[in-house]
Amino acid sequence: MRIQSDNLALLVRAFAELPGIGYKSALRIALHMLRQPPGQADRFREALNAMSRICDCSVCHNIADTEMCGICNDVTRDRGLLCVVEGIQDIMAIEDTGQYRGLYHVLGGVISPIEGIGPGDLYVDHLLQRVRVEHYREVILAVNPTIDGETTMYYITSRLAGLDVKISQIARGVAFGGELQYTDEVTLGRSIMSRLPYTLSGQQ
Amino acid sequence: MRIQSDNLALLVRAFAELPGIGYKSALRIALHMLRQPPGQADRFREALNAMSRICDCSVCHNIADTEMCGICNDVTRDRGLLCVVEGIQDIMAIEDTGQYRGLYHVLGGVISPIEGIGPGDLYVDHLLQRVRVEHYREVILAVNPTIDGETTMYYITSRLAGLDVKISQIARGVAFGGELQYTDEVTLGRSIMSRLPYTLSGQQ
Repeated sequence: MRIQSDNLALLVRAFAELPGIGYKSALRIALHMLRQPPGQADRFREALNAMSRICDCSVCHNIADTEMCGICNDVTRDRGLLCVVEGIQDIMAIEDTGQYRGLYHVLGGVISPIEGIGPGDLYVDHLLQRVRVEHYREVILAVNPTIDGETTMYYITSRLAGLDVKISQIARGVAFGGELQYTDEVTLGRSIMSRLPYTLSGQQ
Repeated sequence: MRIQSDNLALLVRAFAELPGIGYKSALRIALHMLRQPPGQADRFREALNAMSRICDCSVCHNIADTEMCGICNDVTRDRGLLCVVEGIQDIMAIEDTGQYRGLYHVLGGVISPIEGIGPGDLYVDHLLQRVRVEHYREVILAVNPTIDGETTMYYITSRLAGLDVKISQIARGVAFGGELQYTDEVTLGRSIMSRLPYTLSGQQ
């Protein structure tokens, strides 16, 4: 739709640049903001200023408000466990489970020949350096189970070979609440191959 | 998901306040913005500043960058026609058709007893004042065909009674490309009642 105000058009374009927001949604959002008390625009401005204060944790590359993130700073975490993930959303997802109390290392992506992303574009060297210095007892590879993810895990494992550390990967299998008939062959095949002993006291 | 950065949480909350954006989308947008060059945040800030320069056209209540909007300022428009609409999106939609070259008047909503919106909350008095002073030959009611819209049209028509102006409403009927069997009864009934002569040279 043609917008009669250049200022409004500017605001619409800013919103339409965001992922998942089309032109019509951007227009709806911009008109909504116009109807709000000026406080909302101020809060937005504040949030954008806050954005510039977000930094990369110097230890694990998680997002942080200070040089080191909350997890790396937390003395109650198990410093013998290191979980390797692609991105910070993965940290959030694992933290939400409440099942993991170790540390993290963000790779910043996965090796992808098609997208031209090589090991040098990821924090792999930094990972090796951490493993050499910190002597973790276990490195858990929690990379997404995609082709590129598998390649990345293979590469990391080959680089970690020779260092005295146990390497594990998160279990693949039929999702909780999932149905066998709708599970893809690779996942179902793997979940049979890596079957676990079943005891009456619960899964081990 | 739990966010480890207060600054990021602030940004996510700002986006999650917008209509049609849930928490997960807001997080995705915020993380996307973090990965962009700082120019994007600057453009956003500029757009928010631009927002404060948007004003309400003093004549028709359309959005404007100056005291009067582009349509009211346009000397080529037909100053004898006034189209009454609920909101500025309606102006955009009508302008996109390219079929109307008259002026507009934005009501700023419709009368809605349920939502507690009465005629005093709309620019109805201003409309009457314009009609009295400007001597339009026709006032076109282009209010959305809802119950509240009908109430509003009825109210406006009763207020305009006695003034020397033709009052019309936009045609209701089966939409172009629509099918009779899926059209609701009220619309179909109206489209039969307000049937138009059909000539070989096209619809009149």
